Amino acid sequence: MGVMCEEVTQVLIPAAALIGIGFALLQWFLVSKVRVSGDSDDYDHEYKGSLIDEAEFEEGVDGLEASIKCAEIQNAISVGATSFLFTEYRYLGIFMGVFGVIIFLFLGSVKGFSTESEPCTYNTGNYCKPALANAFFTTVAFLLGALTSVLSGFLGMKIATYANARTTLEARKGVGKAFITAFRSGAVMGFLLAANGLLVLWVTINLFKQYYEDDWEGLYESITGYGLGGSSMALFGRVGGGIYTKAADVGADLVGKVEKNIPEDDPRNPAVIADNVGDNVGDIAGMGSDLFGSYAESSCAALFVASISSFGVSLDYTAMSYPLIISSMGIVVCLATTLFATDLFEIKNVSEIEPSLKRQLLISTVLMTAGIAVVNFFALPSEFTLYDFGAEKAVKNWHIFFCVAIGLWAGLAIGYTTEYYTSNAYSPVRDVADSCRTGAATNVIFGLALGYKSVIIPIFSIAIAIYVSFSFAAMYGISVAALGMLSTIATGLAIDAYGPISDNAGGIAEMAGMSHKIRERTDALDAAGNTTAAIGKGFAIGSAALVSLALFGAYVSRAGIKTVDVLTPKVFIGLIVGAMLPYWFSAMTMKSVGSAALKMVEEVRRQFNSIPGLMEGLAKPDYATCVKISTDASLREMIPPGALVMLTPLIAGTIFGVETLAGVLAGSLVSGVQVAISASNTGGAWDNAKKYIEAGVNEHAKSLGPKGSDAHKAAVIGDTIGDPLKDTSGPSLNILIKLMAVESLVFAPFFATHGGLIFKLF
Amino acid sequence: MGVMCEEVTQVLIPAAALIGIGFALLQWFLVSKVRVSGDSDDYDHEYKGSLIDEAEFEEGVDGLEASIKCAEIQNAISVGATSFLFTEYRYLGIFMGVFGVIIFLFLGSVKGFSTESEPCTYNTGNYCKPALANAFFTTVAFLLGALTSVLSGFLGMKIATYANARTTLEARKGVGKAFITAFRSGAVMGFLLAANGLLVLWVTINLFKQYYEDDWEGLYESITGYGLGGSSMALFGRVGGGIYTKAADVGADLVGKVEKNIPEDDPRNPAVIADNVGDNVGDIAGMGSDLFGSYAESSCAALFVASISSFGVSLDYTAMSYPLIISSMGIVVCLATTLFATDLFEIKNVSEIEPSLKRQLLISTVLMTAGIAVVNFFALPSEFTLYDFGAEKAVKNWHIFFCVAIGLWAGLAIGYTTEYYTSNAYSPVRDVADSCRTGAATNVIFGLALGYKSVIIPIFSIAIAIYVSFSFAAMYGISVAALGMLSTIATGLAIDAYGPISDNAGGIAEMAGMSHKIRERTDALDAAGNTTAAIGKGFAIGSAALVSLALFGAYVSRAGIKTVDVLTPKVFIGLIVGAMLPYWFSAMTMKSVGSAALKMVEEVRRQFNSIPGLMEGLAKPDYATCVKISTDASLREMIPPGALVMLTPLIAGTIFGVETLAGVLAGSLVSGVQVAISASNTGGAWDNAKKYIEAGVNEHAKSLGPKGSDAHKAAVIGDTIGDPLKDTSGPSLNILIKLMAVESLVFAPFFATHGGLIFKLF
Repeated sequence: MGVMCEEVTQVLIPAAALIGIGFALLQWFLVSKVRVSGDSDDYDHEYKGSLIDEAEFEEGVDGLEASIKCAEIQNAISVGATSFLFTEYRYLGIFMGVFGVIIFLFLGSVKGFSTESEPCTYNTGNYCKPALANAFFTTVAFLLGALTSVLSGFLGMKIATYANARTTLEARKGVGKAFITAFRSGAVMGFLLAANGLLVLWVTINLFKQYYEDDWEGLYESITGYGLGGSSMALFGRVGGGIYTKAADVGADLVGKVEKNIPEDDPRNPAVIADNVGDNVGDIAGMGSDLFGSYAESSCAALFVASISSFGVSLDYTAMSYPLIISSMGIVVCLATTLFATDLFEIKNVSEIEPSLKRQLLISTVLMTAGIAVVNFFALPSEFTLYDFGAEKAVKNWHIFFCVAIGLWAGLAIGYTTEYYTSNAYSPVRDVADSCRTGAATNVIFGLALGYKSVIIPIFSIAIAIYVSFSFAAMYGISVAALGMLSTIATGLAIDAYGPISDNAGGIAEMAGMSHKIRERTDALDAAGNTTAAIGKGFAIGSAALVSLALFGAYVSRAGIKTVDVLTPKVFIGLIVGAMLPYWFSAMTMKSVGSAALKMVEEVRRQFNSIPGLMEGLAKPDYATCVKISTDASLREMIPPGALVMLTPLIAGTIFGVETLAGVLAGSLVSGVQVAISASNTGGAWDNAKKYIEAGVNEHAKSLGPKGSDAHKAAVIGDTIGDPLKDTSGPSLNILIKLMAVESLVFAPFFATHGGLIFKLF
Repeated sequence: MGVMCEEVTQVLIPAAALIGIGFALLQWFLVSKVRVSGDSDDYDHEYKGSLIDEAEFEEGVDGLEASIKCAEIQNAISVGATSFLFTEYRYLGIFMGVFGVIIFLFLGSVKGFSTESEPCTYNTGNYCKPALANAFFTTVAFLLGALTSVLSGFLGMKIATYANARTTLEARKGVGKAFITAFRSGAVMGFLLAANGLLVLWVTINLFKQYYEDDWEGLYESITGYGLGGSSMALFGRVGGGIYTKAADVGADLVGKVEKNIPEDDPRNPAVIADNVGDNVGDIAGMGSDLFGSYAESSCAALFVASISSFGVSLDYTAMSYPLIISSMGIVVCLATTLFATDLFEIKNVSEIEPSLKRQLLISTVLMTAGIAVVNFFALPSEFTLYDFGAEKAVKNWHIFFCVAIGLWAGLAIGYTTEYYTSNAYSPVRDVADSCRTGAATNVIFGLALGYKSVIIPIFSIAIAIYVSFSFAAMYGISVAALGMLSTIATGLAIDAYGPISDNAGGIAEMAGMSHKIRERTDALDAAGNTTAAIGKGFAIGSAALVSLALFGAYVSRAGIKTVDVLTPKVFIGLIVGAMLPYWFSAMTMKSVGSAALKMVEEVRRQFNSIPGLMEGLAKPDYATCVKISTDASLREMIPPGALVMLTPLIAGTIFGVETLAGVLAGSLVSGVQVAISASNTGGAWDNAKKYIEAGVNEHAKSLGPKGSDAHKAAVIGDTIGDPLKDTSGPSLNILIKLMAVESLVFAPFFATHGGLIFKLF
């Protein structure tokens, strides 16, 4: 037993969750003090008392009228995003219902819907609850996970659409103020999500315990449904949102920037509202669901492995709850970290933005390392045994410390590598920008090469983390390493959500016709945001790799497989087909974006041709039709890739059996990670190469620019190609690998009993 | 024992090889009847007696003078290619020497350079030759393999540079004549290579047998060096040649087509000779070495596994030589197949070219299926046992038939799928062409999606082939499935080599200033050539997948590993790092092409700016400097990717041991196949989308064109991006996966004895 008793654990976890929620509300309150309205009193009130540099403030374009316009635009974006999400949720509701029934029927059928208690599998000699109960509770956990995921995405979107115009308005007072507003809003999302996920999981476990009592095997088996629910919603959120945002973005750019030579986010562009809505439903709501899914899954994987180890058998609740305690500590650590950005340092100029965000990562990692040591000391017994594919592995307290810590630091390494390859402060992106001299073709060649190269260090980091944590604590080690990487999720999400908020802020500034200076500031925020978005994706992918390996291990344990031998044909064909799935999936999502963008282009062109006075700014474009094109495309096109991911484990497991499915999981994991990292870094690099040329920060950048030069045009092409790579197919892939693994884990008993039909027939 | 006795086998194999060589020489003789010279007598003689349609023949531009010009250009290309290859071979000579010494030292050290006989590993109870002898003979086999590979590439290049101008001149008489010339020349290369590879292997085995006598374990272990030699030369040939050709091609296009608006292959373009040289050293010599490597490796893998099975133990020479007999049958079958193209059908117009080439694939596959049945009946005993990772597997004669046949038919499926995705006769490429309407960005997005999608069917085909052959005959099954796919290599190479020859023919027509009609014909040949080149790459990749799996199995057997369990950390980190290697490798090669192309662009621009009258065609450009840029770049840049591939197995095996290396091989195999297929199909599709717009074959194509339209410009950008994908990084990847596997196989005894240093230390 560790030092901490069960009662303390039962208080500390919800306390941490509530602190997180409280902190999020406080940040929201601070953001809400920035007023967005057309009320003249507000305006006077704010500017009379502010420290605003009057000389920099262009009354005409940035004044009251702009403020009113901002409020209008914000409202349009918010309404568009909310309406899209509600439409999407209707589809997801149907999916949840159908899939819930499937889970119940498949798992119930394992023991023929018997209501008899069964002998436990691992805790031998005892009796466990009937399989039918597990089927029921797994379904409930699935629904809870799905609802929490949806809620996470929705809240994120609400906050982001609340913060975007406020960031724009704060940009009038200087880049530092705008930064704080965007960052605080990101923090609201980060903390709400982390705390909410933890709280719901804790409540669910405690409710289920009322029924399961001492049958922890059954209890934590059912809890895996929570991960599945979270991740399946994330899939549709990411894919649907990703298609929405990029159809609009690519479509808007192709006509607006390339053909009509009007700036990005120009209000005359009919697709501009759809584009800004897209940032919120894709990058914010999708990302929120995604990271919540990772968090839920790694917790579930760790809990499941623990439940069949000595913690579970000896009913040591505190040690069993170790994953939740780590997450609780993470919330506290992130809270301290956030204060460094919002209160301890002040951003005075543009060049400080990126270092400040980078510092956040470092601070949270350092603090969390100490936090893990504390948790380990109090929560874990000094020695215990872990389940290791049929054998028992003796593990010491400090082994687990190294597992969590190496996951955490591997995350930092991935984050920093991603920053190096996607920020235009370093040579890789500058080389890509330089290659625009000879046109779009060399830009694309260099960008692809950059993405491929950026895979190397993350993969070595992941490999080292896997080797160390696997050696120390088998699959439990992997799952807590994943949790370690995700323990600072609140900070990670904060700096990640910051990106699309800034992007929206820039869009609103442009649409409201604010001055060039404001737009420059929001652009600088946005360039840093591209990098942090790439970092966020790096984290999402890195943690997905660890999580899905942990889930894979849990699946293998639950399916009763002893080895996954590449030298057997069943496994090998799974491996090679699994490695192909990320390509199939990417082909679908890329093509969806491409086709939807073509439709968008036609509509935008049609409006420019048929609405008199649109180009001159005398008539308003029909934003709603563009919003509808994006909505329809994303809802229609998210189904085939979604079906691919959801059906593959079911088909592979049912028809080819548990070994082939194990191969598929391993193959899609090792191949998907590479595709995902390279796609998101290539896209991020192109975007920032373009921004580098536009910003003209040094002689080299100036020699490539200005906007409209041939090199800049080549850069815009790269940026457009990168859009679906970095915001649709790339980030969806980490859900693909996680989701297939968690689904396999949930359905493992069914596959083990009824699977492998084709081999039974022949 | 099968029906056929040893003596018959010993006659039939060299006889088939000699027939193949004889047939190649006959084809060469037929090609040589087309005269290329400035001699007026020749000219008169040829045209007086020809069936040439006088009306179509434009005396002015296509007459004697053109013929003289063609001879000049052909000579320049031939001299350039020969001089590059000789320079390259100097480097390769050094590499061969150094690596030969490494092989000898590493393998010699396994038993401490002892000259004592050892107890056999598999043929228990008997004594085998000392490890030192194996080290020596492996080194000799390595050198022979390397020399044969170099010879294959060199002969291919000689034939191609001999045939290119002849194809151009024949185009004056009609598309059918030109097609036959190009196709016959391809056949010369295909047959020479297949027959030569078989003959050298047969001679080597028989020479080695003089020493080894009944120690077939040692004999066929040493023979694996032949595969390593072949493949390592192929690596440098592919990478070096690939960088050479694409640096020139991209550089030439970026200035010529994009900036100066002059046609492809215009003689005013200083990089044009380098471009045409590149086709011969990259696509021809590189491809020749590559496929020879695949052939040598699959033979070696099959022979090695057979030698430790009942064939080897019972010294059944005919059954042991089954792989060689299959290849012999392949030569005969391909000979019959070729007659269908050259003598039985006649090509009358452009639209018949592609079907005719496709028919070649089908005919050879059907005939070969019967051929396999014959070989099986005569050469194999009706029942025997095969080595299956420590166990013995009882196998029937007809099981092996299915293994070979499924490899063969999987090859056809891959070939046809590739054709579907890269030919502009079908909707995928037409959709890509259509997406050029909205610019280069959508073209690239659609092209990438197409490449990703094109992976699906080949992977399923490979998976089915693996499952069936693995289930029937373990690793022997895989290796003969690979041989099955390669059994029609002569035909495969013929239709593959046809592509670059036609490409060169078009280039020569343009440079010689021949009429538009001639250029149209060569363009049509070339468009079909792009597709067949993609098919050839598909075969190369598919066979590489099977070959490297077979080599992987042989490696595992030789290293004494019983299972390669993904659930052990050593294997898993190997798997994920292995899956990363294709990305690292591609990053290097893409960047190399990009950088070299930038240098080329600068040089071409410099010449256009500084040589007065160049643009007007009054002055000659300085071709030699461009040739030098390509040469230097390719020789310098081929070293890092080469080192990555050659050193990875040595480092992984020595430091991390045999299990991690097994993981690396499996990971690079399952990931590399996907990257390779998608890269080469994406590139092929872009190239043909461009050609589709240029040719304007239907209303749709006309609406996108003509040359110089915005859609065409977008298509040119896609084509340029595709160049390094399809001709440098893509095709090199199949060598990466094969070479690492064969290298591991050769060094397996060393790794098993001395490997895994890091785990021994800690």
